[in-house]
Amino acid sequence: MSAPIDFFFDFASPYGYIASQQIDKLAAQYGRSVTWRAIVLDANFQSLERIRIPSNIMRSDYIRRDAERLAAYYATPYKTPSNLGAHTEQAARIFHWVHDRQPEQGRDFAHRVLKAYFVDDQNIAAEKVLQAIATDIGLSAEDFQEASANPASRARLKAEVDMAEARGVFGSPFFIVEGERFWGNDRLPQLERWLAKGPY
Amino acid sequence: MSAPIDFFFDFASPYGYIASQQIDKLAAQYGRSVTWRAIVLDANFQSLERIRIPSNIMRSDYIRRDAERLAAYYATPYKTPSNLGAHTEQAARIFHWVHDRQPEQGRDFAHRVLKAYFVDDQNIAAEKVLQAIATDIGLSAEDFQEASANPASRARLKAEVDMAEARGVFGSPFFIVEGERFWGNDRLPQLERWLAKGPY
Repeated sequence: MSAPIDFFFDFASPYGYIASQQIDKLAAQYGRSVTWRAIVLDANFQSLERIRIPSNIMRSDYIRRDAERLAAYYATPYKTPSNLGAHTEQAARIFHWVHDRQPEQGRDFAHRVLKAYFVDDQNIAAEKVLQAIATDIGLSAEDFQEASANPASRARLKAEVDMAEARGVFGSPFFIVEGERFWGNDRLPQLERWLAKGPY
Repeated sequence: MSAPIDFFFDFASPYGYIASQQIDKLAAQYGRSVTWRAIVLDANFQSLERIRIPSNIMRSDYIRRDAERLAAYYATPYKTPSNLGAHTEQAARIFHWVHDRQPEQGRDFAHRVLKAYFVDDQNIAAEKVLQAIATDIGLSAEDFQEASANPASRARLKAEVDMAEARGVFGSPFFIVEGERFWGNDRLPQLERWLAKGPY
């Protein structure tokens, strides 16, 4: 089996959400698996030199409209969150804690968090929202505390973001397959061609 | 006949070049015309508050590779220019001078400048390169001087960029149809749906 596709996403990214609805199916068509990797694009511990889309773009009317239109184009359920640009570090920490133990459960958690944010307009920066989702996927209260606030969990996320940066990731969604980087769900057709016919 | 599509592009933008190879054909399929509008994204006279893609992204290895891959995907002739990020004010001034008088001739000029830059690796910031292209499309030496350096020609370009900014343009390529904004050639499928089926 060929190498998995690394799928980097920030829980606050509408485009990451839309891509999350597509990438597994696309990969499966070409016999590939997908490794989901939650990152945090505005994390305090990131270097200042990092290449990033400025927040004023992400908060602009254009992006708001574009994300709605894109979701409609793909017939993906979508409602612009009231608190667009929520902090996603806690959600990402929990994701990795779960995913490191049970990848399928981690993906389930991610889907539920994304749905809570981009469909049900819940505030995924609120601990009670994350706790309810964690309970739904079977996490105990103790595990939730460890996953969301333990120093090891914080270090785990930092290492993930550092690794992503070292591999040249600077946006969400971001895909890497065989070292080739694809930024944005609008690059999925190019990624598909790569999977179908190899490098070009 | 329905309203024309405004097509904004910077002569230095690989994505604008790739879009320039597609937009007229796409529009014609839906009975639309296209108004080409050269802008300059890094012009000194722009406001500092403008939303812009940071230059470190445009100059990054990622964009270099992405543009090459995208051109290959569309089978568009493309060679990364040696001086990527060239100043494009003079080319844009000449474009508007010609386009205001003869739109088809203006488009011809634009196509030739884009080809010189993105296929033949010529420096389109160099006056002699622009002068040769201007001669090829039939401009006299006097007209070339007026078009490229006259205060009226400078004011014309400034007004164009100010107008683009007022309409919410912040990248290249950028399309506006019936007030709806589409940023990037990866939004052409969404633009096409708009043309085919109306607002969504």
